[in-house]
Amino acid sequence: MSEIQVSAFRWVPPFAQGLVRDLRVRWALEEANWDYEELLLEPQDQKSESYRRLQPFGQVPAFKSNGLSIFESGAIVMHVAENSGALMPGDEAARAHVKTWMFASLNTVEPPIMMLNFMELSGKAKDAGPLRDEIIKAIGVRLDNVATYLGAHDYLVANRFTAADLLMTAVLRILRSTDLVSQRERLEAYRLRCEDRPAFKKALAAQMATFAANEPRKH
Amino acid sequence: MSEIQVSAFRWVPPFAQGLVRDLRVRWALEEANWDYEELLLEPQDQKSESYRRLQPFGQVPAFKSNGLSIFESGAIVMHVAENSGALMPGDEAARAHVKTWMFASLNTVEPPIMMLNFMELSGKAKDAGPLRDEIIKAIGVRLDNVATYLGAHDYLVANRFTAADLLMTAVLRILRSTDLVSQRERLEAYRLRCEDRPAFKKALAAQMATFAANEPRKH
Repeated sequence: MSEIQVSAFRWVPPFAQGLVRDLRVRWALEEANWDYEELLLEPQDQKSESYRRLQPFGQVPAFKSNGLSIFESGAIVMHVAENSGALMPGDEAARAHVKTWMFASLNTVEPPIMMLNFMELSGKAKDAGPLRDEIIKAIGVRLDNVATYLGAHDYLVANRFTAADLLMTAVLRILRSTDLVSQRERLEAYRLRCEDRPAFKKALAAQMATFAANEPRKH
Repeated sequence: MSEIQVSAFRWVPPFAQGLVRDLRVRWALEEANWDYEELLLEPQDQKSESYRRLQPFGQVPAFKSNGLSIFESGAIVMHVAENSGALMPGDEAARAHVKTWMFASLNTVEPPIMMLNFMELSGKAKDAGPLRDEIIKAIGVRLDNVATYLGAHDYLVANRFTAADLLMTAVLRILRSTDLVSQRERLEAYRLRCEDRPAFKKALAAQMATFAANEPRKH
């Protein structure tokens, strides 16, 4: 029996499939070649007291391993990266840069993307056209900054795939229904390069297989 | 001469004073009792090639120490926390929880707060009342979750002040022009408890002193 458990949803609607954040953790675990079990949740489980003890915001993923219980996909990916050789170089300065870009992905690049997402999902976007334009502009500036930094490099840090690329790619994926990434050739090539990894494909297939197996019956 | 340099703005308008993110790093450095020098920027420096080499998004803070050069306030605070005894317990499980709550502060609690901030600063808020209501609701849910988790505890992890409390407090401060924190008694008491630390007061005074010294002359 596997010692690692990762919480995930039994099913979500298609617009969220392939984006739910347990994907980030599944990907890290596949890169590290660590087995895990899914702890599958129904929507009502998110509010249960027992799940809130594991994840105080009721979100996925939460992570359990040998008595250690943590949450936040960023923290879990960092835990895997720090305890396996798969997602970080050994050199101290390079490790600090990987962590820097992990935070940049989640606290500088992702927030305006989450804004756009929140706006679309709220159903209030059409009342807020000028604000939407400002958000898209802000996202574009951040994406251009990442593309400029990447330059002709294949990866963000140390010329190899790291936890920083994993999180950055997961963030870029949220824009899949827009052309904001695809219109930036270098960034699109970077995303495709990272998504072409066997560990990513295995992680995505695992999330999608769970959703397919639990598809609600049509009435 | 100090070996640590932290980039900060020479001056910002009052609405941003006491919130700019170098405050998070100054606070961590004061807790660790590490000396630092300011690397002061004019607005035009943010776009310069030399600063972009240090901080690819042109933001503050960037951090230099003995040849190590990193950015993102979250990553810098984590660097200080991992290399001093001041901001993290020694126990492995507790360290993992501190990191979990650092990410929760920046990637779960802060994003909806940044949305509200972005909306207000864009000047487009009045066209988007219903969206604003949704954002405020989302912030409230997250704040309630944090307050529930805190319960009767003084701090988030291990019954002591850690880097998690530092970042959570810095995030809560962004809401100072609203009553979203102050109407939640337990959370407000927590914020005040953390801001009452000598290291916080010293860090805030240092940021404010720089702004006061560089106040533009009135015409």
